[in-house]
Amino acid sequence: MEQYLYGIDLGGTTTKFGFFTIDGELIEKFAIKTDLSSNGANILSDIAVNINNHLVKNQLTKSNIKGIGIGVPGPVTNGIANKCVNLGWENVNVKEQLTNLIHIKIEVSNDANIAGLGELWKGGGTGYQNLVFITLGTGVGGAIIVNNHVIDGVVGAAGEIGHAPTLNLDFKCNCGKYGCLETVASATGVVNIANKFINETTIPSNLREKSDLTAKMIFDAAKQEDQLAAKVVEVFGKNIGFVCATIGVVTNPEVFIFGGGVANAGDIIINTVKKYFKKYAFLGIKDTAFKLAELGNDAGIYGAAYLVKNEGTL
Amino acid sequence: MEQYLYGIDLGGTTTKFGFFTIDGELIEKFAIKTDLSSNGANILSDIAVNINNHLVKNQLTKSNIKGIGIGVPGPVTNGIANKCVNLGWENVNVKEQLTNLIHIKIEVSNDANIAGLGELWKGGGTGYQNLVFITLGTGVGGAIIVNNHVIDGVVGAAGEIGHAPTLNLDFKCNCGKYGCLETVASATGVVNIANKFINETTIPSNLREKSDLTAKMIFDAAKQEDQLAAKVVEVFGKNIGFVCATIGVVTNPEVFIFGGGVANAGDIIINTVKKYFKKYAFLGIKDTAFKLAELGNDAGIYGAAYLVKNEGTL
Repeated sequence: MEQYLYGIDLGGTTTKFGFFTIDGELIEKFAIKTDLSSNGANILSDIAVNINNHLVKNQLTKSNIKGIGIGVPGPVTNGIANKCVNLGWENVNVKEQLTNLIHIKIEVSNDANIAGLGELWKGGGTGYQNLVFITLGTGVGGAIIVNNHVIDGVVGAAGEIGHAPTLNLDFKCNCGKYGCLETVASATGVVNIANKFINETTIPSNLREKSDLTAKMIFDAAKQEDQLAAKVVEVFGKNIGFVCATIGVVTNPEVFIFGGGVANAGDIIINTVKKYFKKYAFLGIKDTAFKLAELGNDAGIYGAAYLVKNEGTL
Repeated sequence: MEQYLYGIDLGGTTTKFGFFTIDGELIEKFAIKTDLSSNGANILSDIAVNINNHLVKNQLTKSNIKGIGIGVPGPVTNGIANKCVNLGWENVNVKEQLTNLIHIKIEVSNDANIAGLGELWKGGGTGYQNLVFITLGTGVGGAIIVNNHVIDGVVGAAGEIGHAPTLNLDFKCNCGKYGCLETVASATGVVNIANKFINETTIPSNLREKSDLTAKMIFDAAKQEDQLAAKVVEVFGKNIGFVCATIGVVTNPEVFIFGGGVANAGDIIINTVKKYFKKYAFLGIKDTAFKLAELGNDAGIYGAAYLVKNEGTL
């Protein structure tokens, strides 16, 4: 009997569904609006209804489905979403509740974790088994993958490398602490660094004339050899490289993969981070690879499908 | 039939053997001199001979033995010791060679990794499944354990946290890099910091009169409220706490366990490291436990036995 997988990326705005062959060919994707009413009480039943409808429409039965993987926007341990601020959830046993609703095998992890698994399976990390995924977006998240399995951690904080401490203590993080990687490596972080240089130095820059500075504008300027933008990129890369040097002697991955909006700047990210990684990293791990993510917003659905194919997290 | 385990801790001077029940009761331990002649060519056959003799002496057959775990002093991947400087070994397939010599199931990992597993099984980490072991000795090593399995890493460098970069760039590491954790957290590292304060400050201290300063003298002085020694301990604890804060968002363990000669200083180690961990760590992981190791030099044989009981590394 033909076997298929569903991968679901549950976000605070939309819930994305991917329908895959067992080998990871994406047959179809669709999305629904995430219902945030009643502290997200309808979210899981909406998912169950949509899966059931999709099965009927495709003349499939539950026995055709190996499983449903799902990524949620918050820390997960043992299939339980501990806290998802964007959904209004606190201690929701996603694995148990969704299993009871749909009677198909369910596996659950964090959204950054499933994005990392997606990149491992079908994206920039194809061919690797040991990978660290770093997503540089509005915030900074990550996934730690060892032998094809992602690590959740004891409170679901494995891969929360946006909150790794850095050398730079200038900026306060949303978490309340100064110096988190997120304060210098997220889209906002890059703008933080630029504003500091604009205000505290006389380094010439076209950025001084711009209002509403964005990370993209800064990386574009750096590619045009804008002096100030170039310095911003160095601070950004130095702090990421520094944190990667520690991660390199913790799980010792084969490759670091960079995704998220900021990583759209491309090779400049990889080249700068790698330069500082080589400066800070133990000699034995200097050959660790650095690559860009390839799946964009689809990484989550791919990874969620792989999560259930591969029997869950570590 | 009664089942037993052997755990072997192979060092550059002695090879220690532990003979265990399947539940981890140490029945007997013995040691032989490690034969370093001919680039360590006789080491594995010596081990095989000693195991065979021990079996005969105890009227046991190979079917009584679930397996033999072994820790070697260097990086290991897939049962292969990549480089053990102290033994003269390069790319020795310990798993394959020892299996061929003795025809009992063999599992191999790094010496710090097996010590961490030992502490998890029967030492300071009993009852935990997710642990980071940090050994503060002549050097600084470690073990990263996730769900009762230790991570080797792609070049065997997982847990090599002695080479994690720190905030302190004053001292050069044996690896050639400045600022490795080992330069401020090993026995030599603690002396490094003290000598720097002695030479560069006028802080009063009884240590100024001592020759051949040791880490023990410094921790003892700190316990007596020696001002300079107290500052040394702060620098030591700050850098370890800083690195632990990053590890905490990589694999997100339940507990950090500290072993090695320096950790004999006791609670002062835990208290100082924990203070700085709380300063640098992500709010979500601030409850991570910090404990002292309990097995001393026996950690390796216990962990080697557990390694084979538990089917190897991740």
